[in-house]
Amino acid sequence: MLAEKMRPFLGGSSAIRRMFNEGERQRREFGAENVFDFSIGNPNVPAPPEVADAVRYELDNEDPVFLHGYMPNVGYADVREAIADSLSKKFGASYTKEDIVMTVGAGTALVLTFYTLLDEDDEIIVFAPYFLAYGNYAANFGGKLRVVPANTETFQPDLAKMESLIGPRTKAVVINSPNNPSGVIYSAETLKALADILERKQQELGISIALISDEPYRELVYDDDIEVPFVPDYYRNTIVEYSYSKTLSLPGERLGYIAFTHDMDEKSDLVAAAAAGIVNLGFTNAPSLFQRAVMRCLDARVDIGIYKKNRDTLMDGLAAIGYDFAKPQGAFYLFIKTPLADDNAFCDLAAEHHILMAPGSAFGCPGYARISYCVAYDTIVRSMPAFREVWEASAAQQ
Amino acid sequence: MLAEKMRPFLGGSSAIRRMFNEGERQRREFGAENVFDFSIGNPNVPAPPEVADAVRYELDNEDPVFLHGYMPNVGYADVREAIADSLSKKFGASYTKEDIVMTVGAGTALVLTFYTLLDEDDEIIVFAPYFLAYGNYAANFGGKLRVVPANTETFQPDLAKMESLIGPRTKAVVINSPNNPSGVIYSAETLKALADILERKQQELGISIALISDEPYRELVYDDDIEVPFVPDYYRNTIVEYSYSKTLSLPGERLGYIAFTHDMDEKSDLVAAAAAGIVNLGFTNAPSLFQRAVMRCLDARVDIGIYKKNRDTLMDGLAAIGYDFAKPQGAFYLFIKTPLADDNAFCDLAAEHHILMAPGSAFGCPGYARISYCVAYDTIVRSMPAFREVWEASAAQQ
Repeated sequence: MLAEKMRPFLGGSSAIRRMFNEGERQRREFGAENVFDFSIGNPNVPAPPEVADAVRYELDNEDPVFLHGYMPNVGYADVREAIADSLSKKFGASYTKEDIVMTVGAGTALVLTFYTLLDEDDEIIVFAPYFLAYGNYAANFGGKLRVVPANTETFQPDLAKMESLIGPRTKAVVINSPNNPSGVIYSAETLKALADILERKQQELGISIALISDEPYRELVYDDDIEVPFVPDYYRNTIVEYSYSKTLSLPGERLGYIAFTHDMDEKSDLVAAAAAGIVNLGFTNAPSLFQRAVMRCLDARVDIGIYKKNRDTLMDGLAAIGYDFAKPQGAFYLFIKTPLADDNAFCDLAAEHHILMAPGSAFGCPGYARISYCVAYDTIVRSMPAFREVWEASAAQQ
Repeated sequence: MLAEKMRPFLGGSSAIRRMFNEGERQRREFGAENVFDFSIGNPNVPAPPEVADAVRYELDNEDPVFLHGYMPNVGYADVREAIADSLSKKFGASYTKEDIVMTVGAGTALVLTFYTLLDEDDEIIVFAPYFLAYGNYAANFGGKLRVVPANTETFQPDLAKMESLIGPRTKAVVINSPNNPSGVIYSAETLKALADILERKQQELGISIALISDEPYRELVYDDDIEVPFVPDYYRNTIVEYSYSKTLSLPGERLGYIAFTHDMDEKSDLVAAAAAGIVNLGFTNAPSLFQRAVMRCLDARVDIGIYKKNRDTLMDGLAAIGYDFAKPQGAFYLFIKTPLADDNAFCDLAAEHHILMAPGSAFGCPGYARISYCVAYDTIVRSMPAFREVWEASAAQQ
């Protein structure tokens, strides 16, 4: 019965999930307190109390037929309006509810956008390091990724290389800032230069190119002097993919949205296509109670001080040992250069010392490893001797 | 930017949603009390109180990091185990948690199953009247529907015709009982005969054929002497697609599951492929809080007495006027033969009298119309004079 196309996927999960599973195994064998699991981006900071309050409010005050019922496939009108207003106010933009499509997390936001844009053999440009699932998302619709290799100096995108990859089949460029896995934020200068190239290429080729801004980490930024530039300010044909998974620590609830820039090319067709895709791909709509609950706490945030403290302690500890990395300005990841050239070998070695990390290869960036610091502070402190052992064991292997 | 493949979808929503939108328009123009909207299957019976109690219990007693966090992509192990145990106990089956995949409603259950089964040009057999979205679900993966025309005598499937359509590219047969839109339940005899044909064809062709049982209405049955046969009892290669949308009146929350029969062919490969598909299609996991809340009230049910009273009043009223239909035994739909041969013309005529129905063409069954009786009882009573007017206006047109 099984489709032949599924055979490559039977081997099981990604390198990231494999490390997570290894962590599960080690916890059973060695006890949770002896395993330092930095493998996946599952927030450890609880949802702000406003979320549970809003859920209780809805249960107490709303008609359950409405609260748990079907709504327009793109989401409740008042929820979309509240999000449009909130974005417009915050960023001086001009979103209306017609520009917002509620989704089942950022995952379906991306899949739906790719569905809407891609015909067979169309291309999407991504910058390493990047989330490998983008490739599977595009492959669903016969699309292909063109990967710009990582600029490991700064982890800002290599724009010259991007420009060389743009051609008549280019439908979109995807950026992800604050970045998973590097934690780097794309600067205003970067975005300006990127937009200039895209504008020029649109002219040259006589096509429209979408800039897909995948930004679930938008609010997870740790330094007062850092601002995350609002991408649509730089480029009109921007499609923002957002998720409440990290900002409100609700990754399991699957709530996000697509924000189409109000005056972008083909806007109403894109929204109509997304609305059709929600049905054709079987999502039907974003979960209803959480749409309404999140509308009641759009300005709530998890306590990012916890992540900042984790980051700072981790950076200080790793730098003191000798590890090399670009300072992460946002998200909750730190991306180290692996002291062994083979990042998979390094992650296996680290696992022997009960440190679980995701190899950079899992992000199209070999020679690096991702440390997810959305863990208990104590885990970071207690992991430092093990990080030193791994450093020394690596040195001994060279 | 828009993909060419999306152009056919820009016209907007299905005939069903179009009627629903016409209802919205009429409510604004004529007042809600003057519109009899039977267009869509949005349950009007509230979720049983156990659901809100379970949600509150989870909020009060569970760590929010766990409650709203990532879990295995196929769903929480204890939730899957509780569902497997409940099914096994209720139906004398032998499900384990490894057979259950939690999904974002029955929609993604079906899409995920089609994804798992279909290579380009593979075929799925369906019986009219059927949910037209099946065709779009299959088309996502290059699959094609082969449609068995409706048997409008009894609305039991035409098995001889089904047999003639089975070939080497047949991957699955989909059944939906209690049926949307006919309300008919497939009898034990039907299922026995259907299974015999599939077994024989599997042998003959040397292939495995899945029987996909789409059964969101499983518990919505109104007569004491009617039992819904449990499909896996009749055919081993059965994949059940379930949803809590109707049983618990939670259509907006998007919670369902796939149950792979424990000893079906290729079972573990199918589950592994479904697990990969959850990621590749961007769902990531079924909504977490509702997974845990529903686990706490697996035996809860909406008050189906409300639907039964609606059905009986509707049947009596329509029969007295002269409308022809097969008695609906389950679900919350009644499928009438349209007194005008053109069901779209008939539904337009009915809309002029403020009755909104879905044309049978929207289910591959022209000459019929679907009345969704998941509405206020009062709506049914007050609609009867309008149904008589439509009957008479139809007669005048012939």
